[in-house]
Amino acid sequence: MLSYSFCMIAAAVALLMPCHAQNCAGAPELPSIPGVSGLPGLGGLNRYFGGLFQPYRKEKLPERQWLQRQQDLSTSFDDELRNVLLNLRQRLFQLEGVLALNGKITKVGEKIFASNGKEVNFSSALESCEETGGTLATPMNEEENKAIMGIVKQYNRYAYLGIKESDTAGQFKYMNGQPLNYTNWQQYEPNGKGTEKCVEMYTDGNWKDRKCNLYRLTICEY
Amino acid sequence: MLSYSFCMIAAAVALLMPCHAQNCAGAPELPSIPGVSGLPGLGGLNRYFGGLFQPYRKEKLPERQWLQRQQDLSTSFDDELRNVLLNLRQRLFQLEGVLALNGKITKVGEKIFASNGKEVNFSSALESCEETGGTLATPMNEEENKAIMGIVKQYNRYAYLGIKESDTAGQFKYMNGQPLNYTNWQQYEPNGKGTEKCVEMYTDGNWKDRKCNLYRLTICEY
Amino acid sequence: MLSYSFCMIAAAVALLMPCHAQNCAGAPELPSIPGVSGLPGLGGLNRYFGGLFQPYRKEKLPERQWLQRQQDLSTSFDDELRNVLLNLRQRLFQLEGVLALNGKITKVGEKIFASNGKEVNFSSALESCEETGGTLATPMNEEENKAIMGIVKQYNRYAYLGIKESDTAGQFKYMNGQPLNYTNWQQYEPNGKGTEKCVEMYTDGNWKDRKCNLYRLTICEY
Repeated sequence: MLSYSFCMIAAAVALLMPCHAQNCAGAPELPSIPGVSGLPGLGGLNRYFGGLFQPYRKEKLPERQWLQRQQDLSTSFDDELRNVLLNLRQRLFQLEGVLALNGKITKVGEKIFASNGKEVNFSSALESCEETGGTLATPMNEEENKAIMGIVKQYNRYAYLGIKESDTAGQFKYMNGQPLNYTNWQQYEPNGKGTEKCVEMYTDGNWKDRKCNLYRLTICEY
Repeated sequence: MLSYSFCMIAAAVALLMPCHAQNCAGAPELPSIPGVSGLPGLGGLNRYFGGLFQPYRKEKLPERQWLQRQQDLSTSFDDELRNVLLNLRQRLFQLEGVLALNGKITKVGEKIFASNGKEVNFSSALESCEETGGTLATPMNEEENKAIMGIVKQYNRYAYLGIKESDTAGQFKYMNGQPLNYTNWQQYEPNGKGTEKCVEMYTDGNWKDRKCNLYRLTICEY
Repeated sequence: MLSYSFCMIAAAVALLMPCHAQNCAGAPELPSIPGVSGLPGLGGLNRYFGGLFQPYRKEKLPERQWLQRQQDLSTSFDDELRNVLLNLRQRLFQLEGVLALNGKITKVGEKIFASNGKEVNFSSALESCEETGGTLATPMNEEENKAIMGIVKQYNRYAYLGIKESDTAGQFKYMNGQPLNYTNWQQYEPNGKGTEKCVEMYTDGNWKDRKCNLYRLTICEY
C-alpha cells in the first residue's frame, strides 16, 4: 500500500495559499478579476511546510517513503511558484490516495502497480500495459515483489511478469533485454528450459517459468 | 460535487502550447531528438488565459469554486514555465473530473472525500485512510458535512467521522487532539458519556456518539 | 486508448532524481533530515531525458501523441525545478495510465473522454459533465469520433453528443453556439428538422438526430 505521511489539515491550509482571485497578481487582460495584494511572506510558507513535512507518524512508514515525503521544494523557488507546485503535488497525492483506497493502485517508491482484473495471454497483457504508457509488472526487489504479490492475492489469480527467456535457454531477461538483478524463483524453478519462455508469479510471490499462451492476470507498472 | 468552470476548447488549445519536439530546447546528448526553435510569444499565451479563466458559467458555481478557478498563474512566470504548469493543472482537473463523474470523489475546497465502500470498525477505517495518505472524513463546516452526507447517502450506510471522545467524558476532539470548531449533533446527542467514544454520521448528516467497534462505511479525506 | 511511449525504467530512474533527503538542499527547519549534497549535474539529468523521451516504440503511436511525448522541458529551467516538474508530470502519466488500463478514460490529444455508465436524458447528461468540470463529448475530428465510438461500444449503449439543433431547423451547433466543423451523420441524417434537436452516436460512430428526452449513455469530455 502506499503510505503517506503528512498533516492533512496543515496541507489543506497550505493549499489555500496559492493566489486566489482576491489576493493574486492577476491576469491584466481580465478586468473582471479583482486586483491584487501581496502574497504572504516566506515565514508564512515555512509554517505550512512545517505542517506538510513534519515527521508525522514516521513510525507507520517505510523509511524510504518517509524520506520521500520529507522531500522538500528548494527554498530557491519563489513563494508563488512554490505554492503552485505544492498545490499540484498535493492534488496528486490526493488522487493517488483515492485510487489506493479503492485498491486500484499500489505505490512502491516511484512505481505504481495496477491491474485491470483481466486474464489474457502474455502478449495481450503486455500490449494492454504498453498501450497505456506502462509495461508488465517487473519486480526489481523484494518490496516490489511483495506489492505485485498483493495484487495477485487481491484477485486470487496468477500473473505474468515482465520477464522473458532469452535465446539462451534458461537465461531470463527483462523486456528491454537486460539481465535480471533480482529473482524470486520457486524451488526447482525455472525448469522449462526453452519451452517455457514466460514467468508467472504465484500467490506466495514465488516465480515459475511457464508457457506464454496461458490466461493470466494483467498487472502493469507505470 | 465538484463543479468546474472553464472553456474546454480554449484549454485544449492552451495545452497544445508547451514545447513539442519540433520547437523545443532538446536534450543535447540525444541527436535523435530534433532541435530547437523559440517558444510562441506572450501575446498568444495571454489569449489562452482569457479562455482558461473567463467567468464561464459563473452562475452554476459556488462563489468559492468560481474564485478558485479564477486563480491565476502570476505573470511573473515566464511563458514556458506557465505553459508547463497550466498543462499539469489542466490534467489534474481532468482526472479529478473523471473521478467525480464516477462518484469516486467529492471535492470541497481543497479537500477530497472518498469511500472504498467497505464497512469496518473505527480503527480499521482510520487505518485505511492513513495508509493511503488521508485521514477519516472530518467535517469542519456545513459544506464539508453535506459532502460527507452525500457519500453516506450514496452508499446508504452510516459512517464514522474523524472525531473521538477525549479522556474528559462528553468532550469530543479531532484526531489531532484539537477541540471541535464545528458540530452537527443530532438532538439529545452526544449522550453516551464515556461509553460511546466514536461519532457516526446519519443519512441526514446528523451526528451521534457511538461505540467504536461497529461496522461503518469507510469515508476518508485527502 | 491512450498510447504512451517512454521507457518506464528510465522514467523510474528519473523520478529518483528529485531531491530526496539524502541528496537535497533540504528544509532547514527540519534538523532530523540528513544533510545535503548537491544535485546531480545537468549531464546526469539529460541522461534521464534520453530515457524519458527517446523515440521508443514510435511505430505504435499516432504521430501526434509521439510528438507530445517528445515535448521536453526547456533547458532554461534549473535542475531542481525541472526535477519537480518531471516528477509531477510522471505521476500524472501514471494515473492517466491506470485509469486508461481500467477502461475509465480514453485520451485523444489533450482531451479525455469518460463515461459513468449511466443512461439519462440530454440535459441530465450535460449537467453531470458540467458539474464535474467537463462537457458532453463533442467529436471535433475523426480521431475523437472514434474514441467516443469506443466508449459507445464498450457499454453497448448509444450516447448523446454535445451538439444541438439551433433555432434554424436542420442547423446543428456546438453547445457554445459555434457551427460544426466536423460531422459524421449517418446517411439520410439529420432528418428530424426541428423536432429532433439532439444528436446521438451509434455503435458504428455515425450520428443521428433524435429527441432529447431519451435515455442515453453519459459520455463527457474534459
